[in-house]
Amino acid sequence: MNFTYFNRNELKTLGTKLLNQYGMPEERANITTELLIQSDELGFTTHGLSLIPYYIPELQAGKMQEADDVVIVNDTGSTFVWNAQYLPGIWMMNKAMDEAFSRIKEYGVVTASINRAHHIGCLSTYVKLAADKDLICIVSTSDPAGKLVAPFGGLDPVLTPNPWAIGYPTSEDPVIIDTVTSICTFSKVREHLNTGLPMPYPMLQDKKGNESTDATVINDGGAILPIGGADYGHRGYCFSMMVEMLTQGLSGHGRADDVSRWGGNVYIQLIDPEAFAGLAVFKQQMDKLTELCLASRPKDDTSPVRVPGQFGLDCAKQSKVHGVRLNDETLNRLQKSAQEAGIEFPKPH
Amino acid sequence: MNFTYFNRNELKTLGTKLLNQYGMPEERANITTELLIQSDELGFTTHGLSLIPYYIPELQAGKMQEADDVVIVNDTGSTFVWNAQYLPGIWMMNKAMDEAFSRIKEYGVVTASINRAHHIGCLSTYVKLAADKDLICIVSTSDPAGKLVAPFGGLDPVLTPNPWAIGYPTSEDPVIIDTVTSICTFSKVREHLNTGLPMPYPMLQDKKGNESTDATVINDGGAILPIGGADYGHRGYCFSMMVEMLTQGLSGHGRADDVSRWGGNVYIQLIDPEAFAGLAVFKQQMDKLTELCLASRPKDDTSPVRVPGQFGLDCAKQSKVHGVRLNDETLNRLQKSAQEAGIEFPKPH
Repeated sequence: MNFTYFNRNELKTLGTKLLNQYGMPEERANITTELLIQSDELGFTTHGLSLIPYYIPELQAGKMQEADDVVIVNDTGSTFVWNAQYLPGIWMMNKAMDEAFSRIKEYGVVTASINRAHHIGCLSTYVKLAADKDLICIVSTSDPAGKLVAPFGGLDPVLTPNPWAIGYPTSEDPVIIDTVTSICTFSKVREHLNTGLPMPYPMLQDKKGNESTDATVINDGGAILPIGGADYGHRGYCFSMMVEMLTQGLSGHGRADDVSRWGGNVYIQLIDPEAFAGLAVFKQQMDKLTELCLASRPKDDTSPVRVPGQFGLDCAKQSKVHGVRLNDETLNRLQKSAQEAGIEFPKPH
Repeated sequence: MNFTYFNRNELKTLGTKLLNQYGMPEERANITTELLIQSDELGFTTHGLSLIPYYIPELQAGKMQEADDVVIVNDTGSTFVWNAQYLPGIWMMNKAMDEAFSRIKEYGVVTASINRAHHIGCLSTYVKLAADKDLICIVSTSDPAGKLVAPFGGLDPVLTPNPWAIGYPTSEDPVIIDTVTSICTFSKVREHLNTGLPMPYPMLQDKKGNESTDATVINDGGAILPIGGADYGHRGYCFSMMVEMLTQGLSGHGRADDVSRWGGNVYIQLIDPEAFAGLAVFKQQMDKLTELCLASRPKDDTSPVRVPGQFGLDCAKQSKVHGVRLNDETLNRLQKSAQEAGIEFPKPH
């Protein structure tokens, strides 16, 4: 894959102008672009600026701006529930994180459950915001309109992949966990649908319940398997049920509403180590855990053990030196969007 | 396996007398026995009364009674941290749950991290206590002295299986999730060490990192694999790191202390749906989720899809009718303990 490097500020101006031109208020466009760039910097290219060409038709169709602001469903101080009214999801997440940050020193733990979010982008970016402030953060999401993952032992898909991210600080780089409760994401399935290549191991089952590496089974009655697959998929199924409960049960909006519109329900929990045994000892313990994991001799000498998020944080360090890198596919699609909007595209860095 | 049924009250008297005779104060012995019986009722026979013969030598050695009470490390109201001083773990967990129950209506979310617990028994029993009160509960545990599970890609084990349980209410039976972040528990490995039978699928790796169904590799430089195994063990590794962080980082005691004594660190979080969108809509959403999962056509007609905890709750209903059932192994060991203590054993029901 080829990459081209760009100046961060110039990309930010571009993204903000593009989203704003199709109707997203400037402040929201600015925040959205900022977090998309942070996602590119962390190496999550599928959740970076490449999303703007997907957001433009949504903006054009009025699907990201039907309302003025989020609606507060409940607010007890340490907990809050919002109906996000399908407003720009990344801006909404940033607002929810800010709200939680403003309360965390008072409450020690702040918990939010939010329904009807538009696309919320890359979970790692939010938990990193928290870890950079010496806070622990859990962010998880489900789509009550989606049915992609089969319950353990079942043929018919019921659940979504149900991502689960956690960030926490150490004395050096934070640990940034960003995983899902199914063997793979739907993006992974789509990637294999596009390339036609088999998956590296069985991530799916066909309509009869046989494990499969063929992505096309998803369009023929198949399903993504929960973590653990045919052997011990009860474990992934358990974690997936947890996510549906925290995102849909707590937010009061979910599968009981027979939702047909795509959207995200979100669970956010911020935890301050200072409300427990304290930040200093927290970091001391987590430093040791990182050290022990990194010291585990690798199975494959060319592939040392990593801690979650290390690859992304290394990417982000590279971005600081070389600028934000875009792959050819993202570049082509963004250039096309800019051209259609009559906005000048920045020169490579 | 043969089973014998006993009267609940008679077993409770027996267990309380046994633990008390070896030095556990009567109230603690009573609570411990009550929860061991609840574990047997839920079908967790490895974590029921069969534990008493293991607790007796611990009591005799003074290892469950070195201190009078737990030490409060921090308490902010909605959060608390205890040093449990290796006091009886089940009694301590019941005390922590009671503490959280007494605060939940004020705070909406109550979170505790506890270090140096003696054996805490069956996690399902605690989250069921909460679900029966219409509360959500997460309980998780790790042992900072244990090294059984390898980080993804590593040969040397660093982590413990790190159990994770969640309970939540529905309009009918609660959902009781009780899982681990590795493919199997150490109890499972021990079971296969005892029987010599191969495991049904690769749960371990040998000292060279090859996946294995041979339990004996654990004694020859092998390790339990994180959920996802050799293919996608990064997912299980992520969940396992989370547990170490919540139980050791937050409680301020863990691997940085080079702990050599076996013990449990515990994370407890109680969540009141009423502090979010409300209990009624929570149950409505969770009822629908259960309904959809149960309606997923089974791969195998003889094995319909279940929701987590269903098997255990069905066992508990049987116990109400037939009495508490003990398998032969548990019965023999308990009878031996009773005989040694000179305590009369109840007659079968």
